[in-house]
Amino acid sequence: MNADPVIAVIGSGALGSYYGGRLAQHGHRVQFLARSDYRHLRQHGLHVRSCDGDFALPPAQLNVYDNPKQMPPADLVIVALKTTANGSLPQLLAPIVGPHTILLTLQNGLGNEQLLAELFRPAQVLGGLAFVCINRVGPGEIDHTAHGLIQIGEPFGVAGTRLQELTNLFNRSRIQCQAIGDLNRARWEKLIWNVPFNGLGAALNLTTDYLVGNEAGLKLVRSLMEEIISTAALVGVDFDGPAMIEQKIRQTREMGAYKTSMQIDRQLGRKMEIDAIINRPLQIAKQHGLAVPTLEILSNALLAVDATSHAE
Amino acid sequence: MNADPVIAVIGSGALGSYYGGRLAQHGHRVQFLARSDYRHLRQHGLHVRSCDGDFALPPAQLNVYDNPKQMPPADLVIVALKTTANGSLPQLLAPIVGPHTILLTLQNGLGNEQLLAELFRPAQVLGGLAFVCINRVGPGEIDHTAHGLIQIGEPFGVAGTRLQELTNLFNRSRIQCQAIGDLNRARWEKLIWNVPFNGLGAALNLTTDYLVGNEAGLKLVRSLMEEIISTAALVGVDFDGPAMIEQKIRQTREMGAYKTSMQIDRQLGRKMEIDAIINRPLQIAKQHGLAVPTLEILSNALLAVDATSHAE
Repeated sequence: MNADPVIAVIGSGALGSYYGGRLAQHGHRVQFLARSDYRHLRQHGLHVRSCDGDFALPPAQLNVYDNPKQMPPADLVIVALKTTANGSLPQLLAPIVGPHTILLTLQNGLGNEQLLAELFRPAQVLGGLAFVCINRVGPGEIDHTAHGLIQIGEPFGVAGTRLQELTNLFNRSRIQCQAIGDLNRARWEKLIWNVPFNGLGAALNLTTDYLVGNEAGLKLVRSLMEEIISTAALVGVDFDGPAMIEQKIRQTREMGAYKTSMQIDRQLGRKMEIDAIINRPLQIAKQHGLAVPTLEILSNALLAVDATSHAE
Repeated sequence: MNADPVIAVIGSGALGSYYGGRLAQHGHRVQFLARSDYRHLRQHGLHVRSCDGDFALPPAQLNVYDNPKQMPPADLVIVALKTTANGSLPQLLAPIVGPHTILLTLQNGLGNEQLLAELFRPAQVLGGLAFVCINRVGPGEIDHTAHGLIQIGEPFGVAGTRLQELTNLFNRSRIQCQAIGDLNRARWEKLIWNVPFNGLGAALNLTTDYLVGNEAGLKLVRSLMEEIISTAALVGVDFDGPAMIEQKIRQTREMGAYKTSMQIDRQLGRKMEIDAIINRPLQIAKQHGLAVPTLEILSNALLAVDATSHAE
C-alpha cells in the first residue's frame, strides 16, 4: 500500500467521523463522504470530544463531499456506513474504487466483506471490528467515551504485508489497532455479545443491566449465546461455550446500564441493523437445519418493531 | 341472593369504579374499598365519562373506605383488584365475607376463582369476564370509551338461580351482562387474545396494529395463539384453532392502534399481570410436558421488563 494513501471514508456517522478524523488529524489525506451532515460539516467542520484527547477539524482541513463522483480515486476506502444502507454501496463506491484500491469495512455483523468481494475483487477486501463507545450527538459533533480498539484481518486469506502496514498507519494516528489472524472467528465472537444485547436491548427496549440483572433476562441471553455458538460451530468456528458465555455475562455486568446502538436506533425510530447482526446467523442456522428458536423469535420481534421506524 | 344486596367493590381502579359506580348510580348499596384514591374519592367523589352515558357520584352518595374492617359485611363482593395484588386478598376480604357472601371476580387471566375458593368455599365463588375499554385517567376520574359486556358463570358448577339474579341486577343497572354455561372455556378464549396482544404489546412496547400489520408480528401472534389453544386442549377445552386464530386477528385489525392494559402498565412502570395472563397457562403446558417455546420466551421477556417496574 502507498505510504501516503488517499483515504476515503464512506459514511460520516460516529464511526467514520471518529476514525477518519483521527487519520486526518495526523496528517493523512482523508476524504469524507457525508449525506445528511454535509452542509453542516462544510460550514462548521468536525468536533470530537474523546477520552483519548479532544480534537477538531475546521472546514479548511476537512475534505468533505456529498457526491462520490466528485471524489478523487482512493487508495484505501474505509466503509463505515450503517449496514441498513448497504444497498447504496455499489453507486457510492464505483466512482472511487480502482483495481488496486483496498476496501476496509468496519461495519457490524456478518456479510459485509462478502458484499464488497462481490462488487469488486475478494483480494481488495479487508475486514475490521471496532470496539468503541462512540456517539454522534449532533451534526459534526462526535462523543467518544470509551475504548477504541480496531481489529483488522484478511477475510479471504490474502498473504502479504498490507495488514501490518495498515495497522501501523492506524497506530501512528492514535488509533489502537491489532492485526488478527482469524477475522471470521472474531466476527462470530462479537456476535455472541451483539445478538443478545443489541437484539434483546432493542426488541424489549432495555439497557444491558436489565438483561443480566435477573434470572429471566439471563435465560434469554444464555439461550441466544448458545444458539449463536452452535451456529458458529456449523461453519467451523468452535468456542468453549460455557466459559465464553459466563465471560461475556461477567463483562456485561461490569458495563453497568449500557444502551446498545440498536436500542438507540429503536428509540430514535431509525432502521435497525437486523440483517447483519440477527438474520445472517439465523439464515446460516436454517440452511444447516439447526433449530434456533430464540433467535428466530427475536428476529420476528425486531422486524415487528422495525415496522415502526420512520427514518433511515 | 338478597334482592337488595350489600355490595362491596374491592379495588377502585377503572374496572371497580365503573361497574360499582353504575350499580350505585342505580340505587344499589355499594361500598367501595379504595387505597391510593381514598382521600380524593372522599373529597371529590367519582366522575365517569362513559359511552353509555356520563355520571358522577358526589361524596355524599359514595360509600368509600380505606380499611375493610370498617366495612359492613357484604352479600356480594366484586373483586376488581389487579391480580398483581392478589397476595393482599386474604386480609382485604376476611372482614367482609360471611358464610353466605357471594364473591364475583372480574379479574384477568387464570387462577382467580381458585384462589377465592381456597380462601372461602367454592360454592361462594362466581367468575366473570369484562369486555370493556376503560381507563382511570386520574384519581376518581374514569373514562369508558367502548363496549362494557360482562359474562359471568359458575366456575364450580353450582346449580341454582343466583347467576340469573345477578345477571338481571347488572342489566337493570345499565351493565350489559350475560350468564354463560362454560366460564372456563370463555377464560381460555380470552387468553387466546390476551396472551399475544397483552404479552407482546408489553414486552415489545408495541400497539396491536404493529403486531397484526406485518408478517413478522403475525408469526409471533399466531405461534402464541397456537400454543395457548394446544394448552387449552390439555385441560379439555377444544377450539377450532385455525378459524379462531384468523377471527381474532381480523377483530384485532378492526381495532386499529390499540394499547393493551399490560402495555400501559409497562409504560407507567407498574407491575404487569404476568402471572395471571402468561405464567398460569405456561405452568399448565409444562405440567403436561407440552413444549410452548414462544410462550416461555415471552414469559422471560416480560419478567425481565417487569424488573424495571417501580410502582404497584
